Amino acid sequence: MSAQTRTSGGLDEPVFALHRGGKMAITPTVPLRGPDDLSLAYTPGVAEVCTAIAEQPDLVHDYTWVSHTVAVVTDGTAVLGLGDIGPQASLPVMEGKAVLFKQFGDVDAVPIALATTDVDEIVDTVARLAPSFGGINLEDISAPRCFEIERKLQERLDIPVFHDDQHGTAVVTLAALRNAARLTGRNLDDLRAAISGAGAAGVAIAKILVEAGIGDVVVTDTVGVLHSGRTGLTDIKRDIAANTNRTGRTGTLEEALAGADVFIGVSGGTVPETAVATMAEGAFVFAMANPTPEIHPDVAHKYASVVATGRSDYPNQINNVLAFPGIFAGALRVRASRITPGMKIAAADALASLIVDELRPDHVIPSPFDPRVAPAVAEAVAEAARRDGVARV
Amino acid sequence: MSAQTRTSGGLDEPVFALHRGGKMAITPTVPLRGPDDLSLAYTPGVAEVCTAIAEQPDLVHDYTWVSHTVAVVTDGTAVLGLGDIGPQASLPVMEGKAVLFKQFGDVDAVPIALATTDVDEIVDTVARLAPSFGGINLEDISAPRCFEIERKLQERLDIPVFHDDQHGTAVVTLAALRNAARLTGRNLDDLRAAISGAGAAGVAIAKILVEAGIGDVVVTDTVGVLHSGRTGLTDIKRDIAANTNRTGRTGTLEEALAGADVFIGVSGGTVPETAVATMAEGAFVFAMANPTPEIHPDVAHKYASVVATGRSDYPNQINNVLAFPGIFAGALRVRASRITPGMKIAAADALASLIVDELRPDHVIPSPFDPRVAPAVAEAVAEAARRDGVARV
Repeated sequence: MSAQTRTSGGLDEPVFALHRGGKMAITPTVPLRGPDDLSLAYTPGVAEVCTAIAEQPDLVHDYTWVSHTVAVVTDGTAVLGLGDIGPQASLPVMEGKAVLFKQFGDVDAVPIALATTDVDEIVDTVARLAPSFGGINLEDISAPRCFEIERKLQERLDIPVFHDDQHGTAVVTLAALRNAARLTGRNLDDLRAAISGAGAAGVAIAKILVEAGIGDVVVTDTVGVLHSGRTGLTDIKRDIAANTNRTGRTGTLEEALAGADVFIGVSGGTVPETAVATMAEGAFVFAMANPTPEIHPDVAHKYASVVATGRSDYPNQINNVLAFPGIFAGALRVRASRITPGMKIAAADALASLIVDELRPDHVIPSPFDPRVAPAVAEAVAEAARRDGVARV
Repeated sequence: MSAQTRTSGGLDEPVFALHRGGKMAITPTVPLRGPDDLSLAYTPGVAEVCTAIAEQPDLVHDYTWVSHTVAVVTDGTAVLGLGDIGPQASLPVMEGKAVLFKQFGDVDAVPIALATTDVDEIVDTVARLAPSFGGINLEDISAPRCFEIERKLQERLDIPVFHDDQHGTAVVTLAALRNAARLTGRNLDDLRAAISGAGAAGVAIAKILVEAGIGDVVVTDTVGVLHSGRTGLTDIKRDIAANTNRTGRTGTLEEALAGADVFIGVSGGTVPETAVATMAEGAFVFAMANPTPEIHPDVAHKYASVVATGRSDYPNQINNVLAFPGIFAGALRVRASRITPGMKIAAADALASLIVDELRPDHVIPSPFDPRVAPAVAEAVAEAARRDGVARV
């Protein structure tokens, strides 16, 4: 929608009516009918609870909302496909995210949009407000700053810090890939994937696929394939180059696609049909750019056995909401100090396993509205946290 | 309660059951029944709303929860009478405050307890998270740091920044004093008040009483009367000394009480009955220390015409909840850029006027549960904001 249509009446569209006044509110969960209630919920009674926590800090999980609350933190630099629109304009997305957290994971989430884009200022700010929350969901922060911010916060804090644009997407992608392989009788370690995009999502997908044991993965950015011989790479891209691309490929995305079993698009670019035609027999095409997939599903279906997109109006939607509510719900349940690679893979496995008896080419990933999703993910994540030694209860 | 009783079963007391899991939750205010709802509340529909705000930043008030949401910010250094118990132990109070905000003012409030006590770090942190909120309620931050933090934030932000321990108490005290004077047929400008305590509340009460035109006010700290000749005063106390104590009194609180018309205790100390006995005929005694008033009400009644305390189990409770929900509700309603002295005095006047036809010595201030309170305060504050030129709608 252009500014012109908006200023001439666009604000009358239904979407604006829905968002009027925001999309969320605070609800007290204790009664306040009269002075007796007040003296328990507030002074003087509350002093007992404060004193107990001061003496035994772990009790903060029992007697405050911290145990079920996360901050959804952004600096507004990479909001949806809109880019750097600033903190206040990002708030409708952050509120939307908070609403999804509640609806799907019964996790209370608070939008925190920051008036700074400086990495260290963001890290300091989030570290200082962290005592108020049980976890930190980083959101819509541009790459490569997002990697450094997440890493520094994970080093400083003993609560989960999770950049959803990276790991949420990676978890759901791995789940869909597992089921596509299952459906077509293949093993992950026989597959070679080409990822278009080395931003937040591309980097995290590459890492989780390597972690999960994929045969090989080749990541491309706007210049071409990431390989160890390429100069001028950022730290993150150098790290990806070192841990992917076993056969030392170079060249373009199109060259990487030749014979590839999997295409994963998180770039927003487009891939010519001639390149898709060179992929291996029965390939998987996950063209996740929004709103325009890198490869149109109609084209993809001519060559691929399984097609997924980021869109809700096509089958097999790779939607983060399948992951983040359950991941945080599980992590908070066991008071995990962080979210390990094992917890992410467990989330993907749980998500994939949920529909193992229902697999079809147009159904390799559950619907976001499947009520089994978040409980199954949460349970698997909690178990993995215990296994990985990061659970505290 | 001691640690001993708590560890041996104190956690079974009813107050802990009430606080289990915290006292608040997030509630979505939009439906999320299926993909169509999701595509409006979240992607792709939400992008329209983000773009509109990016182009016209004021729309953030229309289309996010910012317009009705405040942060309740503390560093945990002066929590109730418990002192510096740290951020996490302060959270039950901050949640209680948030519950009161919602219940009494329909304002959504989010507890933000900070892991720093450094003035500039607190200021930077709050300034950076401010885009997420319509106002900042500072809470339980120790003096004199609270004064500097509030001043610096007011300079940096164009939303209301209000330290409730100062101004909430001051507003309710002025309201009670107005009605005590009304009831006994006296004018504020004929009254001399002695304030015991030069912390957050004492300083703010002194300022609002001067602003409201009281005859004179003398403020005492643990050393004695604040006067211009005293050396070693902090900036704030030097300012108070310069703007109070017109007759240049020196000496102790007891000396200041001789012939005084009003005693205002916000110190936590005790005042001997012999000193109370020297006050002017028909004096007002507002002994607000909690849980132990500086002068026991039974003693105060022997000499005073009107007695108030900070306790809910005596008449005339000076309770901040009479002020802050309505003050923020009114300020947010007109998108005030700050809270002016005129808005605070308007709040006090509205509070006092509400019960002008019901005045009795044991009823100079409304009950916190009087449903007329917050709407009347909000309306008066919104009007005063317009009058003072700080309203933006």
